[in-house]
Amino acid sequence: MPVTPAQRDALRRGCRAVVGGHPEAAPGEELEAIGAWCREHGWHADRYGDGTLAGAFEAKVAALLGKDAGVFMPSGTLAQQAALAIWCERAGLPHFAMHATAHLELHEYRAYARLSRLSALLLGPRERPTLPADLAACPERIAALLVELPAREIGGQLPTWDDLVELAAVARARGVRLHMDGARLWEAREAYAPRTYAEICALFDSVYVSFYKGIGALSGALLAGDAAFVAEARVWRRRYGGTLSQLHPYIASAAMRIDAQLAKMPAYRARALALAKALAAIPGLRILPSPPQVNMFHVHIDAPAPALATARDRLAAEDGVWLAGGFAEAATPGWSVTEIYVGDNLLALADADVAAWFARLVGLART
Amino acid sequence: MPVTPAQRDALRRGCRAVVGGHPEAAPGEELEAIGAWCREHGWHADRYGDGTLAGAFEAKVAALLGKDAGVFMPSGTLAQQAALAIWCERAGLPHFAMHATAHLELHEYRAYARLSRLSALLLGPRERPTLPADLAACPERIAALLVELPAREIGGQLPTWDDLVELAAVARARGVRLHMDGARLWEAREAYAPRTYAEICALFDSVYVSFYKGIGALSGALLAGDAAFVAEARVWRRRYGGTLSQLHPYIASAAMRIDAQLAKMPAYRARALALAKALAAIPGLRILPSPPQVNMFHVHIDAPAPALATARDRLAAEDGVWLAGGFAEAATPGWSVTEIYVGDNLLALADADVAAWFARLVGLART
Repeated sequence: MPVTPAQRDALRRGCRAVVGGHPEAAPGEELEAIGAWCREHGWHADRYGDGTLAGAFEAKVAALLGKDAGVFMPSGTLAQQAALAIWCERAGLPHFAMHATAHLELHEYRAYARLSRLSALLLGPRERPTLPADLAACPERIAALLVELPAREIGGQLPTWDDLVELAAVARARGVRLHMDGARLWEAREAYAPRTYAEICALFDSVYVSFYKGIGALSGALLAGDAAFVAEARVWRRRYGGTLSQLHPYIASAAMRIDAQLAKMPAYRARALALAKALAAIPGLRILPSPPQVNMFHVHIDAPAPALATARDRLAAEDGVWLAGGFAEAATPGWSVTEIYVGDNLLALADADVAAWFARLVGLART
Repeated sequence: MPVTPAQRDALRRGCRAVVGGHPEAAPGEELEAIGAWCREHGWHADRYGDGTLAGAFEAKVAALLGKDAGVFMPSGTLAQQAALAIWCERAGLPHFAMHATAHLELHEYRAYARLSRLSALLLGPRERPTLPADLAACPERIAALLVELPAREIGGQLPTWDDLVELAAVARARGVRLHMDGARLWEAREAYAPRTYAEICALFDSVYVSFYKGIGALSGALLAGDAAFVAEARVWRRRYGGTLSQLHPYIASAAMRIDAQLAKMPAYRARALALAKALAAIPGLRILPSPPQVNMFHVHIDAPAPALATARDRLAAEDGVWLAGGFAEAATPGWSVTEIYVGDNLLALADADVAAWFARLVGLART
């Protein structure tokens, strides 16, 4: 049974079926693919993010989001710190608000405080998305509000469209800039259909989107807004050390696959809804949110996390199926939680099979 | 004649001879090469900088530098801010010193002040490298001194070995941490021969080296020091948004070529010395430093920068030779300066030809 991440990866790679995400590329496969793609299209290397491929891709994604301009960023961490630095500096106010489970709060070692010197107000309860009333009740003056669509750490929950529209209205009335953490915005549009990405983004002053989650690129992100905002963001990209001498590997990886991946999002979401329904019927499992709102959801399991990890490894070794990357303890004692992100992997599997494997997982973990 | 960077690039690409640097890869060429290399070696993608390739390469370069540990960084901008943040935080003193032409001072929009909240003292005169007496005379308490080996903006000048040893002794006596901007350390060792990289780095508490200049990789850097320092640097890498979901394109590009490129450095330097000698004989040209200390040097030219750019473009269009990327105004009125970095391109050319082209360049620019 695996002890190191490398051993766990090897176990997963040996499986015939993986439930979540997209298939892992073979060594060098993606690099060779983007190389061939650049050769075919004659895309020369960029210089510090400037080049024909970079310019064309930035313009394309900005247009898709209905924004004037966009700048490719190596990471969302950089993109969002840049956005908040700009809005707070313009307001002359180093305070912003966000949900308690925002990436900036949980996964960036409080860079917003240590680097950008900003203070954050955590708005509303942890268990649900930020609502208009949360902002309306905020006693403090803030320069910006960061809203993650969907909120990944709570199972990919989204506010309703009406709540989102009202949230934007409250923000506008208070002079608060609205910034979207759209790491999974590509996955969220179906829930707001028939509205377009541009219609959703029109509620926000600035938008960050990611290319390595649903799109499956090597890495990278884009920060979009009006032209002056994006020009400032380019300065921050350089300050953070994100204006790499060549960014085209990431840009090519995203540009090569964005159209095809966006076209698959409705199928991913439909499968997430179907799989969640099948899993909800298994004793000891609960789905959050139920039904899922996008192509990801959380499975809460009435079993301890270490036992689930052991059972997961046993299923991998004996049956060649990989059910989940990790299990965390839930707030309720004895319960655990895991995330399922529906991508190309699940499209090759049958829900009944996956449900049977999960039933076996629970059985093993409880014995 | 070119107006945009793209037109200038096209003009350069049409040339049969380019004086500086390494040959430009064809579209997709480097990506396909690193893809094939990863496939042959079975290197899987990393996850947020963790993986077998990343670990092996970090250990290899750290050992080459004689340091306990190293962390791959997407950029030198990030690497050096991290180093200074660590040393200043440990000293409880937000002040450091550097040369007036340091990258942090000229090319990072003062990120050390805007992000890391550090203040910088610019030590010694601009025209020569930092000497032990500069530090000894420094009236202020500082946590760290950044030393660039060689100092790029002044033609790649290096302190003598004895001065470097004494500088380290003064730093130690004052409790000042010595950090090396070793963006071109690979190029500098020959000047200190027979000393090894490790012997040079032993004078420093932390060292940053780059992989996209002499090594010719896509991008990337490494920050080396003791294990605790590097562990802290990994936290800063995440804060800055530099822990990309996949870093292996850059790591592979560097790992694939480092040995071969390091082996070429003596030949590059020898050719730089020979070419500088040939150019120094041309009226209206002066070489800085003379003789060059590494495989780069500055050429000061008694002609205005715009006229030189026009002449450079004419030589490219008429003769198919590309002499220099850009010309800046020198401090002396009427004089300009350009940088020559000797790489694989020059190895394919004869010094007499290059000297003749420069003589023609000066002639054209002056008419």
